Amino acid sequence: MVSHDVIKSLVVQNDAKILLVVMDGLGGLPINGKTELEAAKTPNLDSLASKSVCGLTHPVSPGITPGSGPAHFSLFGYDPLEYEIGRGVLEALGLGIQLNKSDVVARGNFATRKGDVVIDRRAGRLPTQENKRICGMIQNHIREIDGVKISLNPGKEHRFALVLRGNGLDPALSENDPQKDNQKIRQIISLNSEAWRTALVVNKFLDKANKLLKNEHPANALLLRGFSSLPDIPSIKNLYKLKAVAIATYPMYKGLAKLVGMKVLECGETLEDELKCLKEKFSSYDFFYFHIKKTDSYGEDGNFKQKVKYIEEIDGYIPQLLDLKPDVLAITGDHSTPSLLKSHSWHPNPLLLYSERCRTDDVKKFSEKECIRGGLGIFHSVELMPLMLANALKLQKFGA
Amino acid sequence: MVSHDVIKSLVVQNDAKILLVVMDGLGGLPINGKTELEAAKTPNLDSLASKSVCGLTHPVSPGITPGSGPAHFSLFGYDPLEYEIGRGVLEALGLGIQLNKSDVVARGNFATRKGDVVIDRRAGRLPTQENKRICGMIQNHIREIDGVKISLNPGKEHRFALVLRGNGLDPALSENDPQKDNQKIRQIISLNSEAWRTALVVNKFLDKANKLLKNEHPANALLLRGFSSLPDIPSIKNLYKLKAVAIATYPMYKGLAKLVGMKVLECGETLEDELKCLKEKFSSYDFFYFHIKKTDSYGEDGNFKQKVKYIEEIDGYIPQLLDLKPDVLAITGDHSTPSLLKSHSWHPNPLLLYSERCRTDDVKKFSEKECIRGGLGIFHSVELMPLMLANALKLQKFGA
Repeated sequence: MVSHDVIKSLVVQNDAKILLVVMDGLGGLPINGKTELEAAKTPNLDSLASKSVCGLTHPVSPGITPGSGPAHFSLFGYDPLEYEIGRGVLEALGLGIQLNKSDVVARGNFATRKGDVVIDRRAGRLPTQENKRICGMIQNHIREIDGVKISLNPGKEHRFALVLRGNGLDPALSENDPQKDNQKIRQIISLNSEAWRTALVVNKFLDKANKLLKNEHPANALLLRGFSSLPDIPSIKNLYKLKAVAIATYPMYKGLAKLVGMKVLECGETLEDELKCLKEKFSSYDFFYFHIKKTDSYGEDGNFKQKVKYIEEIDGYIPQLLDLKPDVLAITGDHSTPSLLKSHSWHPNPLLLYSERCRTDDVKKFSEKECIRGGLGIFHSVELMPLMLANALKLQKFGA
Repeated sequence: MVSHDVIKSLVVQNDAKILLVVMDGLGGLPINGKTELEAAKTPNLDSLASKSVCGLTHPVSPGITPGSGPAHFSLFGYDPLEYEIGRGVLEALGLGIQLNKSDVVARGNFATRKGDVVIDRRAGRLPTQENKRICGMIQNHIREIDGVKISLNPGKEHRFALVLRGNGLDPALSENDPQKDNQKIRQIISLNSEAWRTALVVNKFLDKANKLLKNEHPANALLLRGFSSLPDIPSIKNLYKLKAVAIATYPMYKGLAKLVGMKVLECGETLEDELKCLKEKFSSYDFFYFHIKKTDSYGEDGNFKQKVKYIEEIDGYIPQLLDLKPDVLAITGDHSTPSLLKSHSWHPNPLLLYSERCRTDDVKKFSEKECIRGGLGIFHSVELMPLMLANALKLQKFGA
């Protein structure tokens, strides 16, 4: 992979439009001999694949199952091993929280303790409503500590995000979450010479909050981990001279797009909403990140049938994408989510890249098995961005 | 890619002969469904491919279009991102100028100025004859400045190479070329504490030359960029224990071969001349870089038909290459030059590698599409050199 400095020195701005369609968790594993994508009837994707160059991509590297953050960063051309996003930041992005550069964020669990020992790290997977009530109660009592604003944001079930906002904060903190049940809750300490004040604030917060929770059951403790701040990331505009926009329905993906400096549109909740938005804004930008969530959701649920059906539904919309005449159209997943595993997996993503100058291969069907024989081979997702830029004639020659 | 240090520790000298045939700009894009190579009737290359192991190579990385310098360096086993060759040096190599290690070279344009502003960076693409006349005129008046020899070498149209020869010169200079029309000509300044004397000489030269040009039209200004010196490169002999020789007709490729320490033969202008030379010298060396230029030239011209015809012509010579019984024969391009784009492109190069121990694949035809399925897969050109050495049994085991 060439460095961002090299890419920056080669990029030129032009009017060509790039459309990147991410079917979240697209890749699968076969049940009765066929993956979800292979079982789906996808005449439009197949016809497009036969005019495209295809391949398979590793989001991080072979065998590594990525979270949504690293998987998307790779698609946006940022090596996920170089640009790590803290778990606290990801949790906050997933909840749609607007973060400042100087904020420190942690991912939290409500848990059940007995004395100093955690006996259930998830407090029996607390109902989300209960989580909201308890967060609200704590927030009513604790707004600020030593001049640092404290914000507690309920997530699903037992999860929340803790945001500290103030001056001179530092995320270099240890975690109090022992990561296993029946272990002692740990002390949070600063891991460098700068973070002692942040450690003090967090420990004061935990003292106060634990007191407020002492009569709650099962949620009578808070576990914190993944202290982090927004990473320092060069923007997609700065790197690639792209006027980029994100069309997504879930906060996590909007947040990831914002991290790399994309404009994020508020489009609604359905695929139809997203498409409408894309059509309306197609003349105003030159890079479109179009995210489709539910392929992943059905995979996570282990619902093979629904994932197949949903892929077929997406296939029905492909002609509308083509009607927009993007100069470059890439369709892929961020990672695989096989229904068989009910989780993200390490299997590479099927990919098609269409442009007038893509040099087609022999792939006639958009599927994991066919993409193995694609003209792009099996490669690192982080190379997709240079390939899309090249196909849009946005990269000058390297050297003479 | 293993480091040069590792390769060096494994290389052994033996009598096996490696022949690397570079069909410049070989790869293409389909017109009416077939690339130039696919449209060409190439019975000899096809028969050879079926006895070889095939693949596709990226000269730099996916999506990156290389110039001739980086593309060739990669084929010679030098990572082009590690060994960058300055544009001034490449221009001089292309003009066949013999450079010393201590020379500083710039690529120059004759341009049209109005006051301090460039109104045409190429002086209306000055006829080459005019360029020669003006270079001669300036050279007649300026031979030396402050003990530094000045040499002005006309290229094609508006281009020239400026060579400074003397002691203590340093290429860390800014450029006076604003890179765009209707912008002010810039000042050349030293970019480190060592280059101030070189900056002084260059600025004195520009002052004098601009005065000599004041009544010329349209070429009344000189723009300089890409100040550079010969890079510090380990030789192919030192790295690979190869007695290597280059057979090429164009100065650029002879120059690139010289940069890595190959012996360069003066063979003549035609493919027949090159072949004759190869046969005569085949007993005297063990690595042969055989460069064929016109595949690229026809691509650059957008002349699909002539590129096809020329590939067919080359195919006719393959039996003569085989008659020499090289132990290893690799045939590939340095980069793609599709007639469709009339320029270098980022598309990977078709490659065949023949040896008695190459482990063949199912490829039956030498073409971009078939090479996708080759046994070498899609890989970085810089890996070709270790593969050729291995097939020549010139690499020992790594580790025990």
